[in-house]
Formats: sequence, C-alpha cells, structure tokens
Amino acid sequence: MELIDGNKIAADIIAELKTEVTAFTGRKPCIVLVRVGEDPASVSYVKKKEKTAADIGIISRIILPSATITQADLEKLIDDLNADSTVDGILVQSPLPKHLNEPAAFRRLAAHKDVDGFHTLNIGKVAQEDDTGFVACTPAGIMELLARSGTDLKGRHVVVLGRSLIVGKPVALLALQRKAGANGTVTICHSGTKDVASLTRQADVLIAAIGRAEFVTADMVKPGAVIIDVGINRVPDATKKTGYRLTGDVHFSSVSPLTSKITPVPGGVGPMTVAMLMKNTVKAYKAHAS
Amino acid sequence: MELIDGNKIAADIIAELKTEVTAFTGRKPCIVLVRVGEDPASVSYVKKKEKTAADIGIISRIILPSATITQADLEKLIDDLNADSTVDGILVQSPLPKHLNEPAAFRRLAAHKDVDGFHTLNIGKVAQEDDTGFVACTPAGIMELLARSGTDLKGRHVVVLGRSLIVGKPVALLALQRKAGANGTVTICHSGTKDVASLTRQADVLIAAIGRAEFVTADMVKPGAVIIDVGINRVPDATKKTGYRLTGDVHFSSVSPLTSKITPVPGGVGPMTVAMLMKNTVKAYKAHAS
Repeated sequence: MELIDGNKIAADIIAELKTEVTAFTGRKPCIVLVRVGEDPASVSYVKKKEKTAADIGIISRIILPSATITQADLEKLIDDLNADSTVDGILVQSPLPKHLNEPAAFRRLAAHKDVDGFHTLNIGKVAQEDDTGFVACTPAGIMELLARSGTDLKGRHVVVLGRSLIVGKPVALLALQRKAGANGTVTICHSGTKDVASLTRQADVLIAAIGRAEFVTADMVKPGAVIIDVGINRVPDATKKTGYRLTGDVHFSSVSPLTSKITPVPGGVGPMTVAMLMKNTVKAYKAHAS
Repeated sequence: MELIDGNKIAADIIAELKTEVTAFTGRKPCIVLVRVGEDPASVSYVKKKEKTAADIGIISRIILPSATITQADLEKLIDDLNADSTVDGILVQSPLPKHLNEPAAFRRLAAHKDVDGFHTLNIGKVAQEDDTGFVACTPAGIMELLARSGTDLKGRHVVVLGRSLIVGKPVALLALQRKAGANGTVTICHSGTKDVASLTRQADVLIAAIGRAEFVTADMVKPGAVIIDVGINRVPDATKKTGYRLTGDVHFSSVSPLTSKITPVPGGVGPMTVAMLMKNTVKAYKAHAS
C-alpha cells in the first residue's frame, strides 16, 4: 500500500505555479477573496488562501463585508469585481450567512473569473469536455492526485460515493472524459443507492465523498483498489485535546492495507483545493491577458 | 414483457401541449427552424417538426440559408433571432455542412431560446438540478418514456451505454437527480469499458445509446430489466425494398422476452424527440411571456 501524499503533490503544484508566475512580466495574477462575516472556519480558509497566493506571487485582495450585508449589496460588490480589469479571479467564501442566497451570489460571478468553478457555465463545460472553463477545486484536485500518483483511469471502473455538485458530479464527469488519464467507466452512488457495498466492491478506483465518517469498511473494497477519501469528519475522541479527531469517509486502519494506493485524512485531498484554486487563478490570468 | 409505445406517449404529450397552447390568448409560441443546405434527412426532420408545431398551434418559421453560408453570416442570423422578441425558440438543424463550426453555432444561441438544450448553460443546469433550463430532447424524451410507463428510478441501478453529450451524459445526470421519478444509481459505460456485459447484467434499467446495431444481446441483460433503446441503425436487409432495415442498439427478438418493458425501434425514443422539442418551445414561451 502506498499513501498518496496530498501535501507533497500540492506543494509541487504550488512550486510549479510560483515558477510560472515569477516569469510573468508586468501585472501579476490577482485573486479577490470575499469573506462575509467572521465564521471561524472561513477566517482560517481565507488566511490559508491568502498565504498560498503570496507564496506563489499571486496578488490577493481580501474584502470583508459585514455579516449583515444585503444580497443586493453583495451582488453589487460582485458586479464591480466582475468589471474590474485588474481582477482575474474572484472567490466568495462559503458558507455565507443564512440570510443571503448563496447560489444566486455564486451565479452572479462572471464565469471567466469564477476560479471556484461553481458557475453553471463552468459545470456545463466540464460536461461538454470544454477545457476553457474552471473545474471546481476539489474534483480538480482529485484528478491531479490520481494523475500524479500514476493512476490512469482508462478501462477502469471508478465508483463515486456522493452526487454533490461540488465533488461527486463533477469528478464523475471528469473521470468520464475522453482525455488522457480519464476514460473511466463511472458509477455514481448516493444516499438512495441500494446495496452500496456490491458496487464499491467492483471499484478499481473508489472516490468517497459522502461526508459520513468511516463509512467505507474493508468488506466494501476490492483488494488492490485505489481510494481517494474526500471526507473530513469530526469524530468525538476523548484522548484528543480538542475532544475530537478528524477522519475521512473511509475506515482507514482496516481499509488501507487492502488498497494499492490511498489518500490519508488529513493530508490527502484537503491540501489540494487551495493549490487548485491558485492554478485556476493563473489560468484566469492567462486567458485574461491573452 | 410490455412494449413502451413511444408513438402513443409522444401523441399524448402533443395533445397536452395543444390543449395548453389553445388556451394561450394573444401571441402564440414561435419556433424558428434553421436548416442549412439540403441534407435529405434534415429536410425530413425539419418537415416533421414544422408539421408537429402546426398540429399544436405553435408558429414555426423556417429559414433556409444556402449550403455555402459563412460562419459569420450564420452567427449574424442567430444573433438576429436571439434579439427578436417574437421568437421563443430557435433550432439549428444538425448536421451543418462541414465548413461550418457546429459547436460554435450552437453556443451562439441565446441559452433561453436554446430549445434543443445543447447550450453549455443548459447542460450545466441539468448537472445543477436547476429546472429553469432546457433539457436536450432525446434525454428528456427518455425520462418521459420512463415516467409515463410507470418506471420509477428510485433505488434502481440505471446503466447507460454511451457518453455522448446529447444522450448519454445528460440522461445519466437526469437519472441521478434528486427529484421524484429519478434518484437512480447510475453507471455510464462506453467504448473504453472493459467487460460491459458484467455491468449491463446489473442494470434494472438499461439505456442503450452507443449507435451499434444489436449490440445488447440476451446474455447482457438481467431478467425483468426495463430497456430504453436509443439506437437507430441501418442494417443491410435484402428482403426490404430499401435494401436495409432499421434496428436499435438492442437485439430485440432475443432480448425483449427477458425484459419487463422495452422500447421498440422504430416507435420508441424516436417519436419523443419532436414532442420534447415542442414542450421546450412552450416552456420558452411561458418563461418569455412571464
């Protein structure tokens, strides 16, 4: 069994982006990070994105509207950023406060600045195998983990657990594409699937993204499978200072010995998302500058 | 075994649309059919669409650019139709002559008039389970055939043969949606799939859309399955005056006795596409008028 090291792969991508951005003469890529309110997880995510941007040489601008901002004012802010030619990418940090309409806010972003890849047009491009758009960061990160760990999906059965818009569906569409590295046969399971285990046992590559702690157990896995564990779940653990430990959607200790490759949690998919956000930002810059 | 009668179901939908359109006061829905050149199949398809529109009370306008029209002139024509407030839906008949860029032409259509459902934004809406767009006519027709023949996908394994943009992928995304009648577990197979038979044998519902005559044989089907045969293939047949017969992607005579329900070819999916085009046109009209 081989661990797929998300920290290492993310660091490689960040180093590659740094080399690329350093070579850009004149204006550097710029991402605007919009964080509404003071949700502690959002504060920490945005800080991480700001730091990674700085490491690469991407300019970041942080905008911190008050938690009481109206939908109209938030959309006006987005419109202004859409029109601002010095801005390549815009990220509106999720979750927004409950009184705001998050899907409407995301749809308001200009598709060509939607480096988070949530815009309808960008998902449509993934379905249409049109590479000019932005792939959402988590599914894009999963494809990089597979490619950089030498996992070709061609002729293999990829089983995706979860049909979310931000992970399950786009990663299924990516795995299905005709391009090199993809070309998988794809099954998508979800909460309504009967006998999930009979399907996961057929997986050459299993992508677990259902948000249920340690859902995938050893009896659900074919020996030699590659597993990407997208889950990040908190499980009570009295031995920890915090009172909990982080675990994926896979019961790691029993499953990992069966696999040929597996991502750990943390340190697997997690670190990839910020790297892919930066990669999208550089892509937006290049499309914008060309 | 029960035949799913596409002619009957399409006629029901057309009758429902006629009732609905008859009740519209003032302007009636209008579809523009653009046919470039004189491809014989296209001539026949456009005639069929024109006739069905007339039966319902939908106004159709036929535009027949010469086969030598330039891309720029075709796009100018589309722009004018996009801007024309008396036009609800626009269909550019495929295939276009080889010198034209068909994907670019389809992308030029305003998404809210794209009643064929090929626009990136409309595919994205299918992925995002946003019902405000247009579903491409063949996958929409398949879902109607399933619904109106009493086939609920909930908890069932739907295997789709084929990953085309106009059938395989959208129907897979529709089968996966959370809405009533859908909620299936979905597997998508294609030309690169190894051991297709082991997957099709697991299908409670099998949707064959690979364009290979009689590809699905009895050994590939689970007894009791529901089969939707999207294929329309010409097979040489000396006993026919035309020298060929039409066959689906399923070997009907050996497979049909095993199934609980199956669509014939012709008379299954085929008749549904025009009905769904008209349904999309009425939807466009209602969104436009509201």
